[in-house]
Amino acid sequence: MRIVVIGGDACGASAASGAKRALGESAEVIVLERQPWTSYSACGIPYWMAGEVEGPDGLVARTPEQHRANGLDLRTGWTVTAIDVEARTVSATTDSGGTEDLAFDQLVIGTGAVPIRAPIPGIDLPGVHGVQTLDDGLQVLDSMHRGPNTAVVIGAGYIGIEMAEAMKRRGLQVTVVDQAEQPMTTLDTDMGALIATAMEKMGISYRGGEPVQSIEAGDSGRAAAVVTQRGRYPADIVVLGLGVRPNADVAAAAGLPIGERGGLLTDDRMQVLDHPGIWAGGDCVEVGDRITGRRLHVPLGTHANKHGRVIGANLAGGDLRFPGIVGTAVSKICELEISRVGLREQEARDLGLDVVSVTIRATTKAHYAPGAGPIHVKAIAERGTGRLLGCQIVGQAGAGKRIDAAAVAIWNGMTVEEVTSCDMAYAPPFSPVWDPVQIATRRLTSML
Amino acid sequence: MRIVVIGGDACGASAASGAKRALGESAEVIVLERQPWTSYSACGIPYWMAGEVEGPDGLVARTPEQHRANGLDLRTGWTVTAIDVEARTVSATTDSGGTEDLAFDQLVIGTGAVPIRAPIPGIDLPGVHGVQTLDDGLQVLDSMHRGPNTAVVIGAGYIGIEMAEAMKRRGLQVTVVDQAEQPMTTLDTDMGALIATAMEKMGISYRGGEPVQSIEAGDSGRAAAVVTQRGRYPADIVVLGLGVRPNADVAAAAGLPIGERGGLLTDDRMQVLDHPGIWAGGDCVEVGDRITGRRLHVPLGTHANKHGRVIGANLAGGDLRFPGIVGTAVSKICELEISRVGLREQEARDLGLDVVSVTIRATTKAHYAPGAGPIHVKAIAERGTGRLLGCQIVGQAGAGKRIDAAAVAIWNGMTVEEVTSCDMAYAPPFSPVWDPVQIATRRLTSML
Repeated sequence: MRIVVIGGDACGASAASGAKRALGESAEVIVLERQPWTSYSACGIPYWMAGEVEGPDGLVARTPEQHRANGLDLRTGWTVTAIDVEARTVSATTDSGGTEDLAFDQLVIGTGAVPIRAPIPGIDLPGVHGVQTLDDGLQVLDSMHRGPNTAVVIGAGYIGIEMAEAMKRRGLQVTVVDQAEQPMTTLDTDMGALIATAMEKMGISYRGGEPVQSIEAGDSGRAAAVVTQRGRYPADIVVLGLGVRPNADVAAAAGLPIGERGGLLTDDRMQVLDHPGIWAGGDCVEVGDRITGRRLHVPLGTHANKHGRVIGANLAGGDLRFPGIVGTAVSKICELEISRVGLREQEARDLGLDVVSVTIRATTKAHYAPGAGPIHVKAIAERGTGRLLGCQIVGQAGAGKRIDAAAVAIWNGMTVEEVTSCDMAYAPPFSPVWDPVQIATRRLTSML
Repeated sequence: MRIVVIGGDACGASAASGAKRALGESAEVIVLERQPWTSYSACGIPYWMAGEVEGPDGLVARTPEQHRANGLDLRTGWTVTAIDVEARTVSATTDSGGTEDLAFDQLVIGTGAVPIRAPIPGIDLPGVHGVQTLDDGLQVLDSMHRGPNTAVVIGAGYIGIEMAEAMKRRGLQVTVVDQAEQPMTTLDTDMGALIATAMEKMGISYRGGEPVQSIEAGDSGRAAAVVTQRGRYPADIVVLGLGVRPNADVAAAAGLPIGERGGLLTDDRMQVLDHPGIWAGGDCVEVGDRITGRRLHVPLGTHANKHGRVIGANLAGGDLRFPGIVGTAVSKICELEISRVGLREQEARDLGLDVVSVTIRATTKAHYAPGAGPIHVKAIAERGTGRLLGCQIVGQAGAGKRIDAAAVAIWNGMTVEEVTSCDMAYAPPFSPVWDPVQIATRRLTSML
């Protein structure tokens, strides 16, 4: 049996490794990867840019050589240009510049995502960078070595903010512009406002409610400024933090089913709908939201690895399922930890749900414990049922990963009363005697 | 209506406050407290002893005056000596040294726990201290002010170890002795061994497998040494970390139902079994273990506060329930974070369960993230069903509170496959791409 895997990052490499481990000599596993790297952490790029990690190698979990030693036929520099679903072949350009067709018995599509490049005049200028691949990282570093003084990040999502912090640490004057009033639109605006305040405190200028009109070139022909309706911000470097879209063009051209968000559609075994033997996972697919049943595009390495595990097992005759997501995410800006799960208050209202919400302020540890810092928790519940729908956390060290308890609670459909009663860990160096998440849910129990 | 509450700490004060807030003028709420303090954090005593917190006032969440301002008739220095269930009265010695009988319509028993004082010769010598009340803390400080050089802690549970660390920080030579081979018997011995190693590293001598035979007095008549089968350890201060037992003697004498672990028995509304209008909560009651259905004595402030909330609401005509516990706990020794939930492997086997277990070592953050430290996770599951039964964590900063995700998972009866699939938060400063808890459960999925 020949398994062809398109993409050697989180999903593809995991699926390939899992299948090879289980199938051994009975399967030929060929992995085609455009770039020279495999199994790397794109999420780590901002830390590399900040100079905290040696890159790009420090971000690689498993090299092509290591994969080959494990029996994978791993080919870097190969780009798949077409899939023939009927003939069961893929066409690719090879590392030597030629083209080749490869037959497959089973196909795994792990092509990831590509940065959204809005139709902004100047977006293709030198000095304008995405932050998606290790190649992007090398290009940002190249711009950094030119001795820039100013940077503008377009888009205040988590990658944009992390990159802003990285460049600030490198001594640049940094501005973040976004069309939304507040940064981190994965949070409600009241929680996003806390992030804006923190950014300003650390010397990053946040310009919200300012759609970008153009990127201007300087005398050198490189990017020099970002222009919005309200201002013109000098920018020796421009970083695009506009998010990503599924890299599914080749799959779409092959007639494979694509969802409303542009991602491949699969069943919960990660098999492409109506296409036995063709699997897909990671940033190129849509995933099911367990709370609303909607299909969403949530490009995160943690989902991609889980997809890879499921596909690898199923390629070997297993029956693993990916049961969906609840929208859990965490990030860090300087010392501030930010996390979220489930529905935002506004999102829940837009979906027609009758919700109550509360935001509480507590401390990360007992109020008297050394190092206790502020933590804000917003919790959202459905009126009537009391079901916890969402939770957002902004706070100091120890705040962020508390979201996991809320995530597991939402995963299980717990009510705010159940969460309030639940047995969560307490000791003074870790929590007030009522965990902050439970302070929030307790408040909600009297508002239903 | 008159509500009498025995005990003004976590459960009693919470219940009294909740009832008063809901009932207002229609209820007279009398709280009788032996000590001069109310609503204090006994868990904070080791930090006070270490000099990190100003005590005892810094550990008080709400003073008697504050409670009185909220309408409670709070009487410190009152000790209840008898309850007459038929006549519906309590007898007490008062702050002026007299005695008084008080009639009640509703009674709340929140008498807490008392340190276990094993029948060790010398245990009543001056310089031998429990660590249960703020009074105990003052007495330890009194001994500290005598300029001690050596300390012995008897019992290596979490309070014992925290006190050992506190005295080490104060420059004493500290030995911890325990009859168990490894410290922290709430963990399996393999995980406890990690704690023993850590204690030795920080210069605390751990002597396991040594039951104490006696405490010897010195010339001054104060404790001077602790003697075990194997050694004699100098001890200008002796701290008892032998655990606590429910303080339920008065309740037992009144004929109220007491369980096998010595605690009052209640229903899930926290009403004493078969005794309408008599409520009990906190360290003086037994609680239901959701995993096995057993009744256990788990004296923790977090449960006591939840009991108080439930009782307060029910006194006011509500119908809240305390749904039990799963045995979640966390503690810290120097920079090492220790947490646990559910059944230990050995405990599960003793209960006749067919279990599999695994211990994994990972990092608290992505391997390349600054400050990533080791974390050990042990997970235990039931063979066949795959139900997660227990989890133990020992690791550096960021390790401890991860137990909450496992706790909520066990609370909901999740299998290791479900936990492995669950949507937990990932970003490089917080976790490897597979959360360490999920690395452990993932390993278990292939061992069932």
